[in-house]
Amino acid sequence: MTEVRSAQADSLSAISPVNKGIGFLEREAAAEEIAALGWNLLKEELSLPAAVLYKDRLTHNLNWMQQFIDAYGVRLAPHGKTTMAPKLFQMQLRHGAWGITLATAHQTLVAHRHGVRRVLMANQLVGKENMAIVGRLLEDSDFEYYCLVDSADQVEQLGAFYSQRGLRLQVLLELGVMGGRTGVRDEEQLQSVLAALSRWSHAVILCGVEMYEGVLDDESSIRAFLQRAVEVTRRLAAEKRFQRAPILLSGAGSVWYDVVAEVFSAAGFGDAAEIVLRPGCYLTHDVGAYREAQAKILERNPIARQMRSGLLPALQVWAYVQSVPEAEKAIIGMGKRDAAFDSGLPVPALHYRPGEAEPKPAPAHWSLTKMMDQHAYMKKSEQDNLRVGDMIGFDILHPCLTFDKWRVLPVLNAEYGVVDLVQTFF
Amino acid sequence: MTEVRSAQADSLSAISPVNKGIGFLEREAAAEEIAALGWNLLKEELSLPAAVLYKDRLTHNLNWMQQFIDAYGVRLAPHGKTTMAPKLFQMQLRHGAWGITLATAHQTLVAHRHGVRRVLMANQLVGKENMAIVGRLLEDSDFEYYCLVDSADQVEQLGAFYSQRGLRLQVLLELGVMGGRTGVRDEEQLQSVLAALSRWSHAVILCGVEMYEGVLDDESSIRAFLQRAVEVTRRLAAEKRFQRAPILLSGAGSVWYDVVAEVFSAAGFGDAAEIVLRPGCYLTHDVGAYREAQAKILERNPIARQMRSGLLPALQVWAYVQSVPEAEKAIIGMGKRDAAFDSGLPVPALHYRPGEAEPKPAPAHWSLTKMMDQHAYMKKSEQDNLRVGDMIGFDILHPCLTFDKWRVLPVLNAEYGVVDLVQTFF
Repeated sequence: MTEVRSAQADSLSAISPVNKGIGFLEREAAAEEIAALGWNLLKEELSLPAAVLYKDRLTHNLNWMQQFIDAYGVRLAPHGKTTMAPKLFQMQLRHGAWGITLATAHQTLVAHRHGVRRVLMANQLVGKENMAIVGRLLEDSDFEYYCLVDSADQVEQLGAFYSQRGLRLQVLLELGVMGGRTGVRDEEQLQSVLAALSRWSHAVILCGVEMYEGVLDDESSIRAFLQRAVEVTRRLAAEKRFQRAPILLSGAGSVWYDVVAEVFSAAGFGDAAEIVLRPGCYLTHDVGAYREAQAKILERNPIARQMRSGLLPALQVWAYVQSVPEAEKAIIGMGKRDAAFDSGLPVPALHYRPGEAEPKPAPAHWSLTKMMDQHAYMKKSEQDNLRVGDMIGFDILHPCLTFDKWRVLPVLNAEYGVVDLVQTFF
Repeated sequence: MTEVRSAQADSLSAISPVNKGIGFLEREAAAEEIAALGWNLLKEELSLPAAVLYKDRLTHNLNWMQQFIDAYGVRLAPHGKTTMAPKLFQMQLRHGAWGITLATAHQTLVAHRHGVRRVLMANQLVGKENMAIVGRLLEDSDFEYYCLVDSADQVEQLGAFYSQRGLRLQVLLELGVMGGRTGVRDEEQLQSVLAALSRWSHAVILCGVEMYEGVLDDESSIRAFLQRAVEVTRRLAAEKRFQRAPILLSGAGSVWYDVVAEVFSAAGFGDAAEIVLRPGCYLTHDVGAYREAQAKILERNPIARQMRSGLLPALQVWAYVQSVPEAEKAIIGMGKRDAAFDSGLPVPALHYRPGEAEPKPAPAHWSLTKMMDQHAYMKKSEQDNLRVGDMIGFDILHPCLTFDKWRVLPVLNAEYGVVDLVQTFF
């Protein structure tokens, strides 16, 4: 497990009073100070809309995934781009994660600044200032970093930059598929990358193989892609192309991690390879694509089945009913500025009228029909007891694009009290 | 013109080194200090992706809109939710804006904290902490604030809250249409709101009438809606319902502001009404819905036609080509985390290869076909001279949802040098 250092003592940890979705602050304060104020969602002490995390559900999900990963004897490097919340990274590391996966040099900088010391940047590193950001981080000898290469041009650019500075950059070869995203498609591209790596072997260090199966959507193509990754890894190992032992072999987003775990761990590398999986959305889960994916995993995977529980949605956005202008329509004070809308609109989950003891489940016939920048249209029935000032808690679809709408998310206990605050750094 | 006070001296003006889309900072710094560093986009001194604003184009758009508004003798309260950038608010006020329009209590807090002293919150104010935020701002006697009411329930809640605190809240009656968003639909709703306003007339002060025509999409319905607003205003004025002289009469988003200006200014209120228009997207413009809308305005509006120029797109997102894995496909290091995608994908506008003298126009056949969280797929031809490490400047569609992906946007001069930085507060 990577050591989690305390974050540098600078103003990064101060939460500003001008953030949305929090309660009243006289001045900037640290999360611990704010938690001591005892804000409660049901007492209307947060300005809505607010995105909140449920502490018990986060803990459940953290334990669930780590248990699953451990059962396969592989490593977890959760994708941090989902939340970009260093406090959540630290929770993931404390629960046993091997490192944090990220997508950009900027995200890597954020993680390093907050004490993360092992980053798999599952992306190509391109561009002078991006290479410089990583170069400065590599001066910290405790910092372990990997990024991807998939073209000779890119390797040439990395080689020229890092060799000039006397630095060694660790990389994974990315495999891809026709019609997919990045990654070498065929033997010709592979050989061209390997030739470039040979030219720059003092500065660009090949440590393993990476792929992202999520660009495909049927299990048999994914299994074939995984087998190809295993075979390429085996062949390059036989050719002694890797400068790291064990070799790194990495795959898996949030939808197919079980199949990746199964195929890679069955490949028979033993101690010769360290297998690293990168799901990111398990932490907060959702009620859309990831819930569907998880249901399939619980169906097809024997280890997941044995665990007798699944992942739980741990992120909600709460908002007010601001107008009920038509018998079958309520207007909600939440919009595209507050929640993801690209994989389906948020789903009304809880209904709370200030003053009542606790929220009730929202009727199943309530649903959002449209979102604008700052508003949502909710379909209801004429006879529903719903009025202006009522609060609705929405489950969300696509956590990544919900997190990036918020700079601070209160963490709630079972009584809807704020026990912590999580900052994001997008 | 509202006086623009200097922002409170706190850490809000410090720009953190861990922001995306900027150059290297040793430590937090103010925008002026950073501008003195002389970063240049073409020298790859910014970490890409980066969202940038073009200074000359911003100035052009500011002047264009103010000139248009002045020609009609009406007031401009640009919608600030688009950018949530107080530095841009201040530019708008200095160019003659009457105030800033906003959508939420949080946005109002941000604006007040940065020196804005007149806010039209074109939205219902709902919820205890939201009312409390506004209540605290009202203690500043120099702060002028209006929000909307469209239901008796809401007026009751506002009345109970503010009368208890001895505060007076200024409101506008919102008119709406069946099938639309907020706003009173019919005479029954109108009378019910007026009755509630009468009950709370010491605490909830009716100052005028507001509508948002953008929920409709054909000119004749919009003209009818505008006429209704004029008639209701005239009637309520005759009934002496308004506690402000002049009465406020407000409408207009970024698509129909010319028609609103024309109808409202022709209504013959003279000095009895202050007409306030609220377009927001004119400042950065775009190359999608707002470009189309502006073309129609230049066609149908005589004043716009006389001005002999239109609005210019002033916001771009720059990103690297990170892989060219297939003959007709390049993968770009820019995704849903970096640019709006809900009204159309960003459009390749400029192509720059580091080392060359200046960017060239991107070929017209380049286009994005897909965006993921951190990547875009760009269609190209096999023979295009495009390679890993090339930079592409993208025009964007829907500025609002692009701004909210960025905490800092460099402002560039004609040589792509960074002359200022604009912070956002979403």
